[in-house]
Amino acid sequence: MPASEPFDDDHFHDECGLFGVFGHPEAAKLTYLGLYALQHRGQESAGIVTARGDRLHVEKGLGLVNDVFDDARMGRLTGDRAMGHVRYSTAGGVLMENAQPIAIDCHRGPIALAHNGNLVNAKALHERLEAAGSIFQSTSDTEVILHLYARSHQTKLDDAIAVSLSKLMGAFSLLFLTPDALIAARDPWGFRPLVLGDLDGAVVVSSETCALDLIGATYLRDVEPGELLIADANGIRSLRPFPTTEIRQCVFEHLYFARPDSHLFGRDVLASRLEMGRRLAREAPADADVVVPVPDSGMGAAMGYAEESGLPFQWGLIRNHYVGRTFIEPEQSIRSFGVRIKLNPVRSVLKNKRVVLIDDSIVRGTTSRKIVAMVRSAGAREVHVRISSPPTTGPCFYGIDTPRRSELIAANHSVAEIARHLSADSLAYISSDGLLASVGDPDCNVHCRACFTGEYPVAVTEDWKLSLAEKA
Amino acid sequence: MPASEPFDDDHFHDECGLFGVFGHPEAAKLTYLGLYALQHRGQESAGIVTARGDRLHVEKGLGLVNDVFDDARMGRLTGDRAMGHVRYSTAGGVLMENAQPIAIDCHRGPIALAHNGNLVNAKALHERLEAAGSIFQSTSDTEVILHLYARSHQTKLDDAIAVSLSKLMGAFSLLFLTPDALIAARDPWGFRPLVLGDLDGAVVVSSETCALDLIGATYLRDVEPGELLIADANGIRSLRPFPTTEIRQCVFEHLYFARPDSHLFGRDVLASRLEMGRRLAREAPADADVVVPVPDSGMGAAMGYAEESGLPFQWGLIRNHYVGRTFIEPEQSIRSFGVRIKLNPVRSVLKNKRVVLIDDSIVRGTTSRKIVAMVRSAGAREVHVRISSPPTTGPCFYGIDTPRRSELIAANHSVAEIARHLSADSLAYISSDGLLASVGDPDCNVHCRACFTGEYPVAVTEDWKLSLAEKA
Amino acid sequence: MPASEPFDDDHFHDECGLFGVFGHPEAAKLTYLGLYALQHRGQESAGIVTARGDRLHVEKGLGLVNDVFDDARMGRLTGDRAMGHVRYSTAGGVLMENAQPIAIDCHRGPIALAHNGNLVNAKALHERLEAAGSIFQSTSDTEVILHLYARSHQTKLDDAIAVSLSKLMGAFSLLFLTPDALIAARDPWGFRPLVLGDLDGAVVVSSETCALDLIGATYLRDVEPGELLIADANGIRSLRPFPTTEIRQCVFEHLYFARPDSHLFGRDVLASRLEMGRRLAREAPADADVVVPVPDSGMGAAMGYAEESGLPFQWGLIRNHYVGRTFIEPEQSIRSFGVRIKLNPVRSVLKNKRVVLIDDSIVRGTTSRKIVAMVRSAGAREVHVRISSPPTTGPCFYGIDTPRRSELIAANHSVAEIARHLSADSLAYISSDGLLASVGDPDCNVHCRACFTGEYPVAVTEDWKLSLAEKA
Amino acid sequence: MPASEPFDDDHFHDECGLFGVFGHPEAAKLTYLGLYALQHRGQESAGIVTARGDRLHVEKGLGLVNDVFDDARMGRLTGDRAMGHVRYSTAGGVLMENAQPIAIDCHRGPIALAHNGNLVNAKALHERLEAAGSIFQSTSDTEVILHLYARSHQTKLDDAIAVSLSKLMGAFSLLFLTPDALIAARDPWGFRPLVLGDLDGAVVVSSETCALDLIGATYLRDVEPGELLIADANGIRSLRPFPTTEIRQCVFEHLYFARPDSHLFGRDVLASRLEMGRRLAREAPADADVVVPVPDSGMGAAMGYAEESGLPFQWGLIRNHYVGRTFIEPEQSIRSFGVRIKLNPVRSVLKNKRVVLIDDSIVRGTTSRKIVAMVRSAGAREVHVRISSPPTTGPCFYGIDTPRRSELIAANHSVAEIARHLSADSLAYISSDGLLASVGDPDCNVHCRACFTGEYPVAVTEDWKLSLAEKA
Repeated sequence: MPASEPFDDDHFHDECGLFGVFGHPEAAKLTYLGLYALQHRGQESAGIVTARGDRLHVEKGLGLVNDVFDDARMGRLTGDRAMGHVRYSTAGGVLMENAQPIAIDCHRGPIALAHNGNLVNAKALHERLEAAGSIFQSTSDTEVILHLYARSHQTKLDDAIAVSLSKLMGAFSLLFLTPDALIAARDPWGFRPLVLGDLDGAVVVSSETCALDLIGATYLRDVEPGELLIADANGIRSLRPFPTTEIRQCVFEHLYFARPDSHLFGRDVLASRLEMGRRLAREAPADADVVVPVPDSGMGAAMGYAEESGLPFQWGLIRNHYVGRTFIEPEQSIRSFGVRIKLNPVRSVLKNKRVVLIDDSIVRGTTSRKIVAMVRSAGAREVHVRISSPPTTGPCFYGIDTPRRSELIAANHSVAEIARHLSADSLAYISSDGLLASVGDPDCNVHCRACFTGEYPVAVTEDWKLSLAEKA
Repeated sequence: MPASEPFDDDHFHDECGLFGVFGHPEAAKLTYLGLYALQHRGQESAGIVTARGDRLHVEKGLGLVNDVFDDARMGRLTGDRAMGHVRYSTAGGVLMENAQPIAIDCHRGPIALAHNGNLVNAKALHERLEAAGSIFQSTSDTEVILHLYARSHQTKLDDAIAVSLSKLMGAFSLLFLTPDALIAARDPWGFRPLVLGDLDGAVVVSSETCALDLIGATYLRDVEPGELLIADANGIRSLRPFPTTEIRQCVFEHLYFARPDSHLFGRDVLASRLEMGRRLAREAPADADVVVPVPDSGMGAAMGYAEESGLPFQWGLIRNHYVGRTFIEPEQSIRSFGVRIKLNPVRSVLKNKRVVLIDDSIVRGTTSRKIVAMVRSAGAREVHVRISSPPTTGPCFYGIDTPRRSELIAANHSVAEIARHLSADSLAYISSDGLLASVGDPDCNVHCRACFTGEYPVAVTEDWKLSLAEKA
Repeated sequence: MPASEPFDDDHFHDECGLFGVFGHPEAAKLTYLGLYALQHRGQESAGIVTARGDRLHVEKGLGLVNDVFDDARMGRLTGDRAMGHVRYSTAGGVLMENAQPIAIDCHRGPIALAHNGNLVNAKALHERLEAAGSIFQSTSDTEVILHLYARSHQTKLDDAIAVSLSKLMGAFSLLFLTPDALIAARDPWGFRPLVLGDLDGAVVVSSETCALDLIGATYLRDVEPGELLIADANGIRSLRPFPTTEIRQCVFEHLYFARPDSHLFGRDVLASRLEMGRRLAREAPADADVVVPVPDSGMGAAMGYAEESGLPFQWGLIRNHYVGRTFIEPEQSIRSFGVRIKLNPVRSVLKNKRVVLIDDSIVRGTTSRKIVAMVRSAGAREVHVRISSPPTTGPCFYGIDTPRRSELIAANHSVAEIARHLSADSLAYISSDGLLASVGDPDCNVHCRACFTGEYPVAVTEDWKLSLAEKA
Repeated sequence: MPASEPFDDDHFHDECGLFGVFGHPEAAKLTYLGLYALQHRGQESAGIVTARGDRLHVEKGLGLVNDVFDDARMGRLTGDRAMGHVRYSTAGGVLMENAQPIAIDCHRGPIALAHNGNLVNAKALHERLEAAGSIFQSTSDTEVILHLYARSHQTKLDDAIAVSLSKLMGAFSLLFLTPDALIAARDPWGFRPLVLGDLDGAVVVSSETCALDLIGATYLRDVEPGELLIADANGIRSLRPFPTTEIRQCVFEHLYFARPDSHLFGRDVLASRLEMGRRLAREAPADADVVVPVPDSGMGAAMGYAEESGLPFQWGLIRNHYVGRTFIEPEQSIRSFGVRIKLNPVRSVLKNKRVVLIDDSIVRGTTSRKIVAMVRSAGAREVHVRISSPPTTGPCFYGIDTPRRSELIAANHSVAEIARHLSADSLAYISSDGLLASVGDPDCNVHCRACFTGEYPVAVTEDWKLSLAEKA
């Protein structure tokens, strides 16, 4: 009676969400709500830290925001400045040690850090720091950054942060909290999102705008790639401590990670997805009867595809939203079981229909294969799979949980082979250009699409090569 | 810092889901999965009972199926026959005492019962039984039925069940489990659904077909109104112990309660909802730009409306599916807060648009009002509300949790008044005839629509009048 | 890695403790404290019921009083009348269904019952009630009593209770709570204790006086054997509804069950135990150096033995009071492990000494054997075991959890054989006369000693014979 | 309804217990049992770390050993070397961050540390380390030691440990675990105990011998003051890396902290306590009828006092061993309530008696005052308090949780004043010489008694002065 993963959720996964408030009497509660709205960015652990007087107080735990925080914990999170973090654990079990924010004391005083992203030179820095006598209580990049900060010699906070972050290669959207300041930073490539908002004069920082909406805050602008923002009693100041480089915002945020109601990298996410669908319809039309999304990931693109193709958009797969993290399976196998726990086909929609099935990506192909089989078993005459991303051929090193290259079906098989594997009547992916055009960046000036092209914008360190081997 | 209901979920609520298996070595695990698929019918408590030898074993608890059952509990649920129950508690707190199934011993031996529905003569029976010396450990109708069974004088099981059930007035879909038999029954009006399936020769009974789909069972037919089905070592036998009466299946199952992927009362649920949308579009067209559903309840009707009207179907409200049962609110009120925790508008979809907003019903009007305001705040120029049910003017006495009449906005206000209350530019409900036609019963031969018309099909008892007063 | 019982605690076990309050604004909190003081009488489940208006409210759960009740639960237990129960589960697992008090509704209105004792005609009554149409949700005697009450035809409460209880054979100390009254009853034999106290005018009833002490209540007198006490708005009234019979109070309450600081059956418990020790010293002197109790059960008798014999009382065995209900054992066996988890010998006290080891009883002999071995391994030259009860040769049917006769070492072996089994240099039990004299009842006029003599005071029913066979 | 501390337990408190095993296939389970036996040394958190291959695995949590460890956690603790820790938290709440062992990675590889004691130069070291760029995730001394180790430049493990520990001033009994070795160390003064044992060839280290007894290990000898013991694949080696100094073992271990069945600093603890009682009887006889201990702390001394004085030892106060960490108090105050939850007087023992009441110490005097009042309320004619320690006039800086000096009643009042405060008929403390003689060290060559004399053996650092001020 194995308790197993409810659903082979064959997607890339974002690793974290960040939220911070400076200057509001209910800072912790707003942070709690902000994390609630960012829950899709990480479900493994949640944490909030507040500052009052010259002390920080942190509460964190494993589970959803709703499970980790109760009245007692919230009651201890006093003060008018706070920040929080939700985390999706990548591998090797869910460890309390890796829950964030991490709060420490150092010669500069107490400081807490929450991180979304992934450094490509973390191992090198880790080794150098250990050689210099540092100790590590976790395996997270976050602890590396805190060590750099603690060892910096600059007298002013701004400089210490700036110098520390200058040593980092790779993806980081960060929030620091000290007793005096809330600090937000985004790496010069701008891999991961971070936005700035205002609530009645209080400074709000969030991974996505959907969290601003929930608390009624106004979206001001993105924290810009390479920007360091410090909010303290003197107001907000913006620094640009890093050498400028090309901007490489993660295109998968628009494709899949972000909530469709968020505004990201200057665009509405749902608008991008609708446009992906429209372009996909033009690039890869299908002689079919209905357009059916794989919910919820394929919803936006399917609507766009339906609009452009003139085919009716239909709700042919129903998702069960009560799916928990694990459940008890029968020993005797049930056909398409793993996917049925989450999705069920609607026979009256699918029967005798030529179906265009829309999803955002195919990672290993395992789930897509089951879904195609399920759609056929509900009576579909043909199944034409359309994917709103190009084939994902390479792992991500910038804060996304992806399988190693050998597991990526598109890294090792042609589209025709994948179509056969899925038993699809046809299969098409959007073109890389089509995707980029959909996010308003037709010449790919400001987006990273390394997972489609293998052209990694930051790839210069020693442990980078190591990582590459590990994810091969 | 009040921990409050996450969302004023202004809907009628179904009260229970049932699932049973007879003759399968993994009976309890299949029941667990069946309840999983029926979770939308009740989230307050879950229970499973199995039979082995001459004993029954029951495990139940408060919470979702996933929370109540772990490996240890499942390990104790042995035997090849099982049944289970999920429950939505109606009022007065969530009580362990009311969790089902209820298992008892009596002179006929051990028996367990799970119930979906509501009796209109429960109080009268309760009083009569108490006067005859019965004791009650809960306030549920279920215990009443068990007392009747224990006091019946028939020598054969079938007769004892039949005679006991003959005394019941109102709505009941029931599952009994004894060491020897799984028994399913449906009241003569057929208020609540119950279907019969087969899994490799094992008998399966479920509230909805979506649970059959999950375990790979084949749908055979509905347990018919007034039918008593006994599955035991001799196979299945069907009895018709009740006087025939008019059939009155709950139209709200098609409108809202059932999962859209279920097949119910002879029809696909989603097909009914699409048709409601189409008819609503014909009955109440709107001069508008986009059709936007209130997710997830308005999805089906919105698709039908869009199809019929030719207006684009748009995903203008995004639902957060991580919403838990309670959460911690800020003290300082946030505009539209209660509804924003669950729904967020998409500005790029709504801005400057004339929006047709589709939902299945308006109960108190509180939530609808907030949604309209939220849609406007996202930039909508006009908001035209269309509802795929007629105005709900009366409470339900047949197993649905509805507020008292005085709280039903449509019981006390005209459509024009409600439109003003919602601040909607226009408001229209589907006609009663349109709704009935949508479920394939244009002359209303087999459906109950008492909550729209006040014509209650079963209304003859003394405590009926009492109930009526209570729900006034 | 078996999680096992921490200690083969080879004792008879009392099954329940009762506590009730009528007429105090903090009735539930006082009951909570009372149960706290009675925790030694039952550690498996705890429950409290209060009355307010015409309703009862019950909270109960598995575990210690301290674990079951938190602020939230206590906050729901309002009203100025309350009663509670702690339970030691006898066999077949710890079941929530058997937790007490049990609260029901019947034609007389709501009533709750808590029971300490064991009926010898429960099965007969159960069968008769089932034949008359009653249903049972547990296997407890308690439910039988409630059925009798619900079926009684007397118009007045007092009569209904009196007539119902008249049908019971065996041991019962009972507390009933109705919206109007707290009712205490003790069977005519008086097997189990029950005392009456006063706290600032409020009526208090408790199994033992130690609970009165904790809340600062004054002990008034015992509820007498055969007495029915009703406390309501009119004050207290005392009825004597049962035919008089011989009084048979359980001598094991003085021997082991009750807390040494309680006053029971007219005597201080510790005084009885000291006297048992003194008499044992006279009856069975030992040529030895030190007197060592098996803590805590042998403490009182060991002090008396030391006093009378002139030998020094020594703390040769230390008890670990942090022992939980279960723990994880190593696979590789450790000598005397099961007993060492709870007791450890003190080498400096025992080395080269001739030790008189005092305990209250030997049930199966398993633990005593391990203790003797452990005392020897700590260097004792001789071990003389002295027991402050006569050999226990028969099971109890009056509310004490005892093993079946075949497991009672003294039922099947001579004292010499037992001494050899224990590897004791000598073994002696107090005489039955000595024991009775120690509790001030030399002619055995008011005590039950059936477990020593096999002379059962109540033994007339059919299921009695069945029970006898089961416990053979 | 405040949930409050169950009992104003007016004692000094030991802060930790240590247990380690090297070379046994069930290392973690033995450690679990060892911690079980050391539970009296710390009840706030428990942790175990094991080594397998080149990795350490740690499991820790808040609560008793029994609560923290279940089968799942134990199953993850594989390997033949393990160590564990129980902790009594001193102040400022129970923090997961401070639970031990702490496991880190550094350039020397993984290492874990468990600590019993308190450094007097921790703050100075902490500041120096911070100035050098170290970060701190807790406020514990333990992290300081790990930083020193990580920054040491010695190439060999032994040297690195030795050099790191050489920088520590104050009390430390330590266990380190690396993948290759279990390392035990005791500060040169020997403040806190640590013993070495053997179990079938496996090395066992424990704070007290009672833990060796439980697992059947043989006590070999104490880890000596100033000794560094390394157990690895080559066997055990002993180093003496510290400059020799005077030995200052904590006399309060014999007085109160250690279990009476332990052998400590070369003596049986119970033997010491008996002798304290005998000497107290000679130094401060009382014209009285009975000797009554405050259980359990006064048990040993009371037996010695009774023996020497010829007065009968009596069990006049009964302790409730089911007392949990918190419970719910009534709002209306009950006389002597705080103490009655744990202790109840026995009237038959105390009535009309002149009582010698024996306890080990008086810290603030609050509890003693309540106990005297309670004993009188049970009828005692006179109460003569005798204390087996001298007046405690100074706080401890070596690992014992003591209140600040201003709260120590004896620091600010004469014995006569204290007697009046307690309402005792007489009060006497053992002399400092008597105490030392009782532990076999009449000239005070090897014990610390700073809390009686104010002569602190290690008091040379800057933060020492700070601490002194803080505890004033």
